Amino acid sequence: MKTLNTPIPPGGTIGIIGGGQLGRMLAMAAARLGMKTCIYNDAPDAPAFQVTDRSFAAPYDDLEKLAAFADACDAVTFEFENLPAHAIAHLADRVPVRPGAHALAITQDRLSEKTFVERLGLKTAPFFDVTSAGQAREAFAKLGGRGIIKTRRFGYDGKGQAKVASADEAVKAFESFKGAPAILEGFVDFEYEASVVAARGADGAFAAYDPPANEHENHILRRSTVPSPLSSAQVTGAKEIAQAIGKALDYVGVFAVELFVGKDGALLVNEIAPRVHNTGHWTIEACACSQFEQHIRAVAGWPLGDPARHADAVMENIIGAEVDAWEALAKTGALHLYGKAESRLGRKMGHITRLKPLTKP
Amino acid sequence: MKTLNTPIPPGGTIGIIGGGQLGRMLAMAAARLGMKTCIYNDAPDAPAFQVTDRSFAAPYDDLEKLAAFADACDAVTFEFENLPAHAIAHLADRVPVRPGAHALAITQDRLSEKTFVERLGLKTAPFFDVTSAGQAREAFAKLGGRGIIKTRRFGYDGKGQAKVASADEAVKAFESFKGAPAILEGFVDFEYEASVVAARGADGAFAAYDPPANEHENHILRRSTVPSPLSSAQVTGAKEIAQAIGKALDYVGVFAVELFVGKDGALLVNEIAPRVHNTGHWTIEACACSQFEQHIRAVAGWPLGDPARHADAVMENIIGAEVDAWEALAKTGALHLYGKAESRLGRKMGHITRLKPLTKP
Repeated sequence: MKTLNTPIPPGGTIGIIGGGQLGRMLAMAAARLGMKTCIYNDAPDAPAFQVTDRSFAAPYDDLEKLAAFADACDAVTFEFENLPAHAIAHLADRVPVRPGAHALAITQDRLSEKTFVERLGLKTAPFFDVTSAGQAREAFAKLGGRGIIKTRRFGYDGKGQAKVASADEAVKAFESFKGAPAILEGFVDFEYEASVVAARGADGAFAAYDPPANEHENHILRRSTVPSPLSSAQVTGAKEIAQAIGKALDYVGVFAVELFVGKDGALLVNEIAPRVHNTGHWTIEACACSQFEQHIRAVAGWPLGDPARHADAVMENIIGAEVDAWEALAKTGALHLYGKAESRLGRKMGHITRLKPLTKP
Repeated sequence: MKTLNTPIPPGGTIGIIGGGQLGRMLAMAAARLGMKTCIYNDAPDAPAFQVTDRSFAAPYDDLEKLAAFADACDAVTFEFENLPAHAIAHLADRVPVRPGAHALAITQDRLSEKTFVERLGLKTAPFFDVTSAGQAREAFAKLGGRGIIKTRRFGYDGKGQAKVASADEAVKAFESFKGAPAILEGFVDFEYEASVVAARGADGAFAAYDPPANEHENHILRRSTVPSPLSSAQVTGAKEIAQAIGKALDYVGVFAVELFVGKDGALLVNEIAPRVHNTGHWTIEACACSQFEQHIRAVAGWPLGDPARHADAVMENIIGAEVDAWEALAKTGALHLYGKAESRLGRKMGHITRLKPLTKP
């Protein structure tokens, strides 16, 4: 198999699993560095296919196609964390996979992720394993208040989760998951949400972007704003949390740590996303090295770029039919559209970033 | 044929003639706006082919392939100005071509370009038509001093030009062009070089970037710096020159006006480039809307973007074997590599932009 003792030089090929907007923006960042890209996606009309001349459209568990893909690449990475474990292992037998199987395995599963976070001594909402209706009832009793029941795997944008205020509701929600293992999390009465988008290099180098404050609507990110209201001590604390997580996962690449900021100022880890993240899109305009370029640098074994912010920024998602206003939007900021053929309710069609002069350097 | 009374919506296809680094960066800017791209290049291994899933590799005068290309696109543009006139006409019969044949015809030819500039009442170096050895001698006598003899067409990066200090040298230089029509230009003893990169929309809207000061080495651009030493009155004057040229050409898209800044402060027009320009690469990092996005906006009939600069910037080209230092360069700024398979003497392999806080807003 190929190994990576030296950086992949310009002209090398970065393989990207997943052809959505994150894969598309990763491919464009790789191209900027003189890299070739190869995109693997399970549907043929992937947005990222439009920005590369090499792609595979095949199921994520097609081991033959995955092997051919691996052979075409010098390193492989992901735009999403839910590839089956045996597919990752199959790739990793052939080509360096960054981040690696260990980091993906832990972060694919809410129970293992929260357990991992707790063992690092970091704060998180109370959580309980729920694999049966009886356990759902017991867990709710232990929690002693409102909670959220979530499938352990494959959740995103609020899918596979439900707020519950009674043991009966907990049972009902669990049953709606049709047997999928779940966790019950305590409801956190947070002041606001924030996130740290950070990178770890193959050499252990660490670089974190300033944490934005994030607003959601209908469980979908609406807006990320830098600077956030976090104090400079909180910013330092948030970056230290990310650094501890990155190190413990022996992570290579960009990842995001979603945080709840409590009314007492405490930072609770909500989720770890082992990939570039929607709350880091503002870095394209506001930083010399965007999260996408940073991830490609890490995957290719290059030196990490400077995550310093040269401007304040507000990033807003363009969701569903909002994209119809593209012409008006194009007058108001740096517009990114993802090349998706049709808009659907709740579908992320693009985003727009507006810069302002730097207020908190 | 297709016409363009309304903007091309996201999902439309922008055709780009020329697959070098300018075509590559144009394609990436188009993708950011949700556009598809199709690249036409006369060699199969074009850098821009790597960033699109649709391309044509065929000679620039293959009318059948050009027609198929036109049919695949909603509008066509160029990364270089030297397409044969009959090929442009052939395209323009089928699809909107921006900028149009008129602007290309004038700017393809140094004699028609300089005549055009002079008729607009703008300053330029003295120039003389040279189509024979006898005319070379006569022209040198009229000039009465040092000059530069240049082929009227197809020159770039100092190719097809020679400094001459005597009538004999003028004849010898003309003869080295093997019959190609030429002009003799008076030597301008300028203080430094600058350029205005500007855009004109299909609706006549005009937007100019701040003019950088440009330094050349061996006739190849080494460095562009904003802000330049130009006074604010000179900056206004430079932008007005570009606006007058854009209007007179009924131009649609981005173009560059290269200027000599005289020791007396006068601005002399050196060349017009009917395309995105090397001296505008710094706009990728230092402006909300880069020259590449601006060009795509104009070609697609979108509103022009904001050309305001949010930072100072120095852009340096990476030429020939300098690219071997990519790993060290990657630590020092925003690195762009062009995906060229091999470096050759004088070949532009990439560029790097370094931002500094805004000093002259």
